[in-house]
Amino acid sequence: MQRYFIKKDNILNNMALIKDDDYYHITKVMRMKLHDHIIICNNEDSWLAEIENITSDTVVVRLKEKLIEKKELPANVTIAHGIVCREKMEEVIDKITQLGATNYIPIQMQRCTAKIADDKYEKKLIRMNKIAKEAAEQSHRTKLLTVEAPLTFNELLKLYDKYDLCLYAYEITTNTSTIKTLISEKKYQNILVLIGPEGGISEEEARKLSENNFIAINLGPRILRTEVAPTYVMAAISCLLEE
Amino acid sequence: MQRYFIKKDNILNNMALIKDDDYYHITKVMRMKLHDHIIICNNEDSWLAEIENITSDTVVVRLKEKLIEKKELPANVTIAHGIVCREKMEEVIDKITQLGATNYIPIQMQRCTAKIADDKYEKKLIRMNKIAKEAAEQSHRTKLLTVEAPLTFNELLKLYDKYDLCLYAYEITTNTSTIKTLISEKKYQNILVLIGPEGGISEEEARKLSENNFIAINLGPRILRTEVAPTYVMAAISCLLEE
Repeated sequence: MQRYFIKKDNILNNMALIKDDDYYHITKVMRMKLHDHIIICNNEDSWLAEIENITSDTVVVRLKEKLIEKKELPANVTIAHGIVCREKMEEVIDKITQLGATNYIPIQMQRCTAKIADDKYEKKLIRMNKIAKEAAEQSHRTKLLTVEAPLTFNELLKLYDKYDLCLYAYEITTNTSTIKTLISEKKYQNILVLIGPEGGISEEEARKLSENNFIAINLGPRILRTEVAPTYVMAAISCLLEE
Repeated sequence: MQRYFIKKDNILNNMALIKDDDYYHITKVMRMKLHDHIIICNNEDSWLAEIENITSDTVVVRLKEKLIEKKELPANVTIAHGIVCREKMEEVIDKITQLGATNYIPIQMQRCTAKIADDKYEKKLIRMNKIAKEAAEQSHRTKLLTVEAPLTFNELLKLYDKYDLCLYAYEITTNTSTIKTLISEKKYQNILVLIGPEGGISEEEARKLSENNFIAINLGPRILRTEVAPTYVMAAISCLLEE
């Protein structure tokens, strides 16, 4: 069934108001009518809902039944990703949302060839969060992935305190742990995984990560492109924790 | 180091001849010179090689040292995939090659909206195998993925004898096994995993698959797009068998 994330403000008692893009999607793309059913999520709970009224700019639905859905990973997983071009960033956001990630943070790293101009970032962020919303709806999630503002590499290092497991994918050293071992040894609540940009993580960056308690992992013996590695990480975590 | 797959016929004693696209790539894209080093694979073995001569249409290399590389999954994994549009098929082939799959077979299924016209298939096959070759080189594999000719659904069912584990991703029933359990319980040599097209696997198809000893698996509690599911399968198998 079609699913829509709406803001909490738009839910009052047992009614919800749907406007803008979702209004257009319901009325024009899906061509829904009165009494059709949809699922409404507010990024916390979800409900089965019935369309009660369609005005010129609002779909009014009645929340009929709170749903008990188990769609979210048992751990919050943040993908930190060396900044790549817009197309690749959008592809990664779409895929890791389907695979259950909770946050995506672009990181300015030594070998990044792409840049995010400050003045354009707000517009980009809106577009990327829209992609995440559509992917969350399509994959039947109950929570949205949040695309965060880009950080410098040094700002990333300071994030260590906010997570109980910080990893980085690094194929150069043989001294790496495996996701399987790390994820299986303890119940982690908040996991961060850093994936380098196209050029990979520099030796200096790897040294600093290691000094700041980030653990190097390998993603199998083959070299994965920067847009495939986040998908590998999310699928591996899902396979280990959810199946 | 740059890696090239070449045909066995082009290797004689300790010399190899590189022509056509790879010749162009070495001389024009990489702008390599005499004495530069590359890795040569013949889909079985790989060697460190040195450029000894560059003519108007051939790069001649000397094989200096046979390499001992462990880049391949311990099991052969075939992805059978309901036929999707060309762009998605190419994306899947690129990604599952990086993740270690050995074969890709397009399957004609009830809910396929895309078709492969017989008269155009040979050309498509050449292009898709080229994508697989480039992905294998980039991901440092020692074996190529083979893109096979499309099969009907009934032909797929008969493949059961060729594999020791046949799976299909099916999110509808709760009566599914998990990749983790199946892969961990026994050492399988040849695994086939069927992923449905955009519309999914029909109930009738699921029934026939089950009757023919295919086992239903789920890929986590979220709904994955048809082009993401093969990546999930390959990453999960890699995480379970290789790490």
